[in-house]
Formats: sequence, structure tokens, C-alpha cells
Amino acid sequence: MTESETHDGPHGYISNKDAYLKRLRRIEGQARGLQGMVTDDKYCIDILTQISAMTSALESVALGLLDDHLNHCVLHAAMAGGAEAEAKLQEASAAIARLVRS
Amino acid sequence: MTESETHDGPHGYISNKDAYLKRLRRIEGQARGLQGMVTDDKYCIDILTQISAMTSALESVALGLLDDHLNHCVLHAAMAGGAEAEAKLQEASAAIARLVRS
Amino acid sequence: MTESETHDGPHGYISNKDAYLKRLRRIEGQARGLQGMVTDDKYCIDILTQISAMTSALESVALGLLDDHLNHCVLHAAMAGGAEAEAKLQEASAAIARLVRS
Amino acid sequence: MTESETHDGPHGYISNKDAYLKRLRRIEGQARGLQGMVTDDKYCIDILTQISAMTSALESVALGLLDDHLNHCVLHAAMAGGAEAEAKLQEASAAIARLVRS
Repeated sequence: MTESETHDGPHGYISNKDAYLKRLRRIEGQARGLQGMVTDDKYCIDILTQISAMTSALESVALGLLDDHLNHCVLHAAMAGGAEAEAKLQEASAAIARLVRS
Repeated sequence: MTESETHDGPHGYISNKDAYLKRLRRIEGQARGLQGMVTDDKYCIDILTQISAMTSALESVALGLLDDHLNHCVLHAAMAGGAEAEAKLQEASAAIARLVRS
Repeated sequence: MTESETHDGPHGYISNKDAYLKRLRRIEGQARGLQGMVTDDKYCIDILTQISAMTSALESVALGLLDDHLNHCVLHAAMAGGAEAEAKLQEASAAIARLVRS
Repeated sequence: MTESETHDGPHGYISNKDAYLKRLRRIEGQARGLQGMVTDDKYCIDILTQISAMTSALESVALGLLDDHLNHCVLHAAMAGGAEAEAKLQEASAAIARLVRS
């Protein structure tokens, strides 16, 4: 997997790729379902309920990936120490802030 | 569109269906893009940034639909008054609470 | 209470003022408790747990007030109709968007 | 400060205690201000705007504390490695999930 190795090494940190892909395919299906609901003039409150469910599913994927990231990239950087550790933690903090505020 | 009329009348309240469909197709594309990022072992922080963007896009669609809903269904029910008005407002409040908490 | 009547009439819409005041006093107490935790070097995760609880309590107050607002000011404006109804709904939508995004 | 040392050592990780205390006192003042607004029948939308501002201020304190925590407790545990590192990361992930969902 040369391409992903070029930048900063392979990111094989994701604990269970198939499970994430399955969840993301389901989320893609929810986005398609929403289009059908809008096309069919479904009741607005029902559409909003679907959007809330989809947002929760997305948040849950994000929290899982962040957990994997902390347990791999950040943990390794922390053990190595120095500027790299500091940079990885700063980067993780910024990502967490985006999640909390989005 | 007989089917959508059966339950509680046609919900032709959505101000600009084409614009919503376009935004939802873009969100569907983001969900597909996320699958590609996971498959290609992209960097976790970049995946999280995409998820934050997608969550914001979804929230924005929800707020637009809610605004349309308040300006049509809720407004009409309020003008009619009585139990129907109360029921529509209670339903809208519950949908808002789900959005705020999701 | 002349002052609050000058702008746009008395806002006696709050369903149960004493209950809100009690909840807000509890939230004020939580803010004071957080200061004590910081002063006493309490464990960060415990402080964060308290902040999450306090944020949920605040959100819950906001959703209650919004519900009261929709059932009084917005409902009355909607029944009166016209530009006033439109303005009140626009204002409510903007407040909802701030809550969802904060 | 013997008391805070008894449980699991002094948590002197907070980067700038005085700054946090100042922000928390300001948040306490906002909670008191909200009580005044309710007592004086202030306009609901203005109260909601204050609540949104207060929620953002609280979130910002939480993100700052979490950042301090990652850069001290979690970093130290990660460098020590083993079960302690794993436990600290799991605990941090759970706190992040509560923040994202609250």
C-alpha cells in the first residue's frame, strides 16, 4: 500500500475496518432514504427523526475512530515522547473540539 | 401522489425540494467518501474532519426543514387553534429536543 | 413591572417561574462546585463529568423555555397572523439554530 | 494539600488554575444573571441567547481541561505503558463521548 505509506506511514490503526465500512454503508443508505422521504413529501417530523438518528450514528463512528486513534497513533507518539507526542496530542485535541462543537 | 395523501394529507411544505435533494445527495457522497477513506487507510484525523463537516451539513438540513415546518404546518395549526395547534407544537418541541441532544 | 412592559408587553409566558428559578439556582451551585473542584485539584475526569451534567441541565432549561415560548408568544403571533407571525417564527428558528449548534 | 493526595495523588495538571477559576466565576455569574432574567420576565429569546452563550463557555472550559488532561495524565500513563496507559485512554475516551453527546 505504497500510496498511504508515502505521507506518514500506513495508518493501520483502525481496529475493525469491516465493521466501520458496514456502519458507513448504513449511513449512506440513510442519506439515500432521506432523499426518498423528501421526494415523496413525507412528514417533516419523520424526516427530522431520521436525521437525528443519522447524526447519532455518525457521532458514534467518530467516537470509535477517535478511540482507535488515541489507542494507536497517540499512544505510540506518547511513548516516543518529545515534539511528536506534543504535536499528536494537539492534533487530537483540535479534532475533539471540532466534534464537540459540530 | 395518493400514497402520501392517505395519512395526513400532502406535506407540500418544503420550500425548495430540489435544493434539499441536492444537499442530501452531497451528504450521501460524503458518506461514500468516508468509506473510501477507511478502505484506503487514510489518516484518522482527516476522516474525523470529514465527519464533522458531514454532521454540520446534516444539522443545517435539519434546521432548514424545521424552519419550513414551523412556517407551514405549525403556523396553519396555530391559526386553526385548539387541540390540533397544541399537538403540532408539542410534536415540534420534541423534534427540537432530539436535534439539540443528538 | 413597567419596564418589561415597555418594549413588547409583559412576558408572562413562563409556565412555572419557581421551578425554573430552582433549576437555575442548582446550576449556579454546580458552577460554584466546579470552582471548588479546580481549587482542590480534583481529578480532571470527575470535573468533566460535572461539566457534562451541568451542560445537560442547561440544555434542559433551554428546551423548556423554548417550549413555553412556542406555546405562548409564537402561538399568539401565529393566530394574529401577518408580518408579526413571520417575525416571531424567524426569531424562534434562529434561537433553535443557536441551541443546536452550541 | 493532603486530602487530594490521598486518593490518587495530587492532580496538579491544570495549566492555569487562576484562569479556569476566573472563567468559572464568570459562568456562575451567568447562572445568576439568568435567574434575574426569569424573575424580571425578560423576553424568552434573550434568555435563550444567554443560555447558548453559557453553554459555549462551559464547553470551552471542558475542552481546555481535557487538553490539559491529555497532555499530563494521559501522556504520563502512555509513557509508563501497560494496563495503566490503557485504562487512562479508555477513561479519556468515555469523557470525550459524554462531552460530544451532552
